Amino acid sequence: MTTNGTVVFQSDFGLVDGAVSAMYGVANAVSPELHLFNLTHDIPQFDIWEASYRLIQTVEYWAPGTVFVSVVDPGVGTDRKSVAVLTDSGHYIVTPDNGTLTHVAQKIGIARRHEIEEAENRLQDSQHSYTFHGRDVYAYTGARLAAGLINLDGVGPSLPASETVVYPSTPPHLENGVIEASVDILDVRYGSLWTNCPRDLFAELGVKRGDYVAVSITHHGRTVYGNDLKYGQSFSDVNVGASIVYINSLLNVGVAINQGNFARAHDIGAGTEWRIRFQKTVGPGATPSGREDS
Amino acid sequence: MTTNGTVVFQSDFGLVDGAVSAMYGVANAVSPELHLFNLTHDIPQFDIWEASYRLIQTVEYWAPGTVFVSVVDPGVGTDRKSVAVLTDSGHYIVTPDNGTLTHVAQKIGIARRHEIEEAENRLQDSQHSYTFHGRDVYAYTGARLAAGLINLDGVGPSLPASETVVYPSTPPHLENGVIEASVDILDVRYGSLWTNCPRDLFAELGVKRGDYVAVSITHHGRTVYGNDLKYGQSFSDVNVGASIVYINSLLNVGVAINQGNFARAHDIGAGTEWRIRFQKTVGPGATPSGREDS
Amino acid sequence: MTTNGTVVFQSDFGLVDGAVSAMYGVANAVSPELHLFNLTHDIPQFDIWEASYRLIQTVEYWAPGTVFVSVVDPGVGTDRKSVAVLTDSGHYIVTPDNGTLTHVAQKIGIARRHEIEEAENRLQDSQHSYTFHGRDVYAYTGARLAAGLINLDGVGPSLPASETVVYPSTPPHLENGVIEASVDILDVRYGSLWTNCPRDLFAELGVKRGDYVAVSITHHGRTVYGNDLKYGQSFSDVNVGASIVYINSLLNVGVAINQGNFARAHDIGAGTEWRIRFQKTVGPGATPSGREDS
Repeated sequence: MTTNGTVVFQSDFGLVDGAVSAMYGVANAVSPELHLFNLTHDIPQFDIWEASYRLIQTVEYWAPGTVFVSVVDPGVGTDRKSVAVLTDSGHYIVTPDNGTLTHVAQKIGIARRHEIEEAENRLQDSQHSYTFHGRDVYAYTGARLAAGLINLDGVGPSLPASETVVYPSTPPHLENGVIEASVDILDVRYGSLWTNCPRDLFAELGVKRGDYVAVSITHHGRTVYGNDLKYGQSFSDVNVGASIVYINSLLNVGVAINQGNFARAHDIGAGTEWRIRFQKTVGPGATPSGREDS
Repeated sequence: MTTNGTVVFQSDFGLVDGAVSAMYGVANAVSPELHLFNLTHDIPQFDIWEASYRLIQTVEYWAPGTVFVSVVDPGVGTDRKSVAVLTDSGHYIVTPDNGTLTHVAQKIGIARRHEIEEAENRLQDSQHSYTFHGRDVYAYTGARLAAGLINLDGVGPSLPASETVVYPSTPPHLENGVIEASVDILDVRYGSLWTNCPRDLFAELGVKRGDYVAVSITHHGRTVYGNDLKYGQSFSDVNVGASIVYINSLLNVGVAINQGNFARAHDIGAGTEWRIRFQKTVGPGATPSGREDS
Repeated sequence: MTTNGTVVFQSDFGLVDGAVSAMYGVANAVSPELHLFNLTHDIPQFDIWEASYRLIQTVEYWAPGTVFVSVVDPGVGTDRKSVAVLTDSGHYIVTPDNGTLTHVAQKIGIARRHEIEEAENRLQDSQHSYTFHGRDVYAYTGARLAAGLINLDGVGPSLPASETVVYPSTPPHLENGVIEASVDILDVRYGSLWTNCPRDLFAELGVKRGDYVAVSITHHGRTVYGNDLKYGQSFSDVNVGASIVYINSLLNVGVAINQGNFARAHDIGAGTEWRIRFQKTVGPGATPSGREDS
């Protein structure tokens, strides 16, 4: 798979100053023919996990050959490696190898991984700048890859793809009719919970559209939510203001309030310590604490 | 009018996660030659009225043949129709037909309206996703229209343009020297009121630059503001901090504080229940409550 | 230097309404072949100084021939001039001449300066709109320059480059082993202080990586901070949560907390009245008030 002239940028820089525009300028100066786009620049500062998630949310919707440049880099100046990888889906990602590739490595797969040799792959005259690798190294290298001026061998030496840095995580599992999963991330704008339980695993519960699911959520072992919720296809299967279990746009199980904010309503966050369990139930009220109407 | 290879996106998704980028990816994968731009993605959640207004604020500044994709869709999964329309100005808009076309229908006019036939016009392999029509249906269809891969007949069956869904609204009118209008929207960043009173109607009051206008604002019938304000051409016609009546960039009457925030200063919102009246007056103080200096 | 078909926009309009998209539409309608990008649209309202700084932060990372359109314009309608300038680096900037060019004039230099003749250079049929020069004059003129439809002579009459409007500022200076400078701007997202002291001047102190620097900050003469801080190459030279003096990405001296927010921690702002002094010191604690560990 060769690159296709498109670069998609992600960072935690925000858009209020000139940092992102400087990266764009560097890429545009490498080749004015490149097509430059954003994933997001509003990753919470230093939140590598969320950067990893936003990649899995988007990468495969772009054409193979697209180059992603992701810069969430609390360790600039440490010995974390700078890499360019090729995924099994034919996409390129240029990033610090600090966990940003966690979801992509686990769900898509990394085919090749090369360390960026900065002696070659660094913006000219930037050798006195040590704090903005996003502009000086990542945008520059991503743009040269996308423009076909270098290929992965030109990026630097090959490293084992299997040693890509990933965060530890517990896969969802089904036992005795109960799925245990975690709240992978919040759909921040709408406050929905996006779990790491895929549609196919959930299907094994035998829950049909309109059936009820017992949902319980714990944080560090403490129960913070427990109710029977209707399983629907889309939000309109329940009334405005009612809660719903559904399959989200990444085909994982989600929990939401129709036109409301589930996370804020129940003070729920995301991460491996936010555990969620699903169990088929006969209807609302079958679980003692279940009084949510829908 | 054929499409021109340009797509302009609007939504209430925000830019903090990957939703907008996934839509861009879908469009770019349809054709890498498309030019992709934003209107805004910060429409307040589910605020169809504001989505409608932002379209009328921008559509005609883009070249005819441009395709707009607007996704503010509280009713995803309900029986609201998905449509693509051609306006009398030669622009295309792909959107849920839920009121988003209100201002465009009333001020520009809808020439053709076609329902999106989802069996044909849906991102491949997205049939298990029911919650993100912005990505799976609207971005995909808008991109294919813009790239010339389909035309309106390829979108789906023709529907009567005259039955486009619009919100009810009261047109501004002049009677006995008094204009009654409504505050259509706030210029949110600056806190100016943008009314639905056009420049031509206001001209019938015979107010000249430098003259005074009696302005009164009511909300559900309660008076929340009443003052005589100077009518100026641009903000600099009054001192910093003084209020002004002026013609805004859409050639409607606006009310603002020069370098201040009129809406916040007087707790004023927007919508059909925020009524505003304009009357010619002889000067500041002629109206009993008028003590605003300028 | 001829223009290269690229326009980069900056404003204080924000991205929540349709103002920026209307500017893009005007430029795209001038020529669909133009490449359109953003610097930022989140300049604080009417903050000309910050607009000036964001230009110096980015301009030279874009290819020569790029046209910048910067619209922070509290004086729309006053006698401030509208200009297009060519910098000594070969970049074009279209802007109100109200101080926005301060840093570019001082650090890059202005080669040519032309006043925009609005009779020629104004969006067709926009003559009744007096409040949105960003759309009607600046975007339109910038796009026509970038597309090669006009050159600087076509913009309007030449004005002396030396009379470009700049804000007064005190250059940093070194005396008796003490550098006195000012906090030019905050790196808002991370809360780092970016001073106007260049790397070369700081080098004269003879401070090496790992050495300590006595840092004191005053506001209108009152001392608000005083400590000995380590001088490092990048944030990882100090522990997470520790403060550091470093060379930022514009090769000026910065002060930061590694993964923290220095400005918020110590209530520090930016501007000419925020003075900062640097002096070589033997180590932490050598200055009486110095107890910051790192």
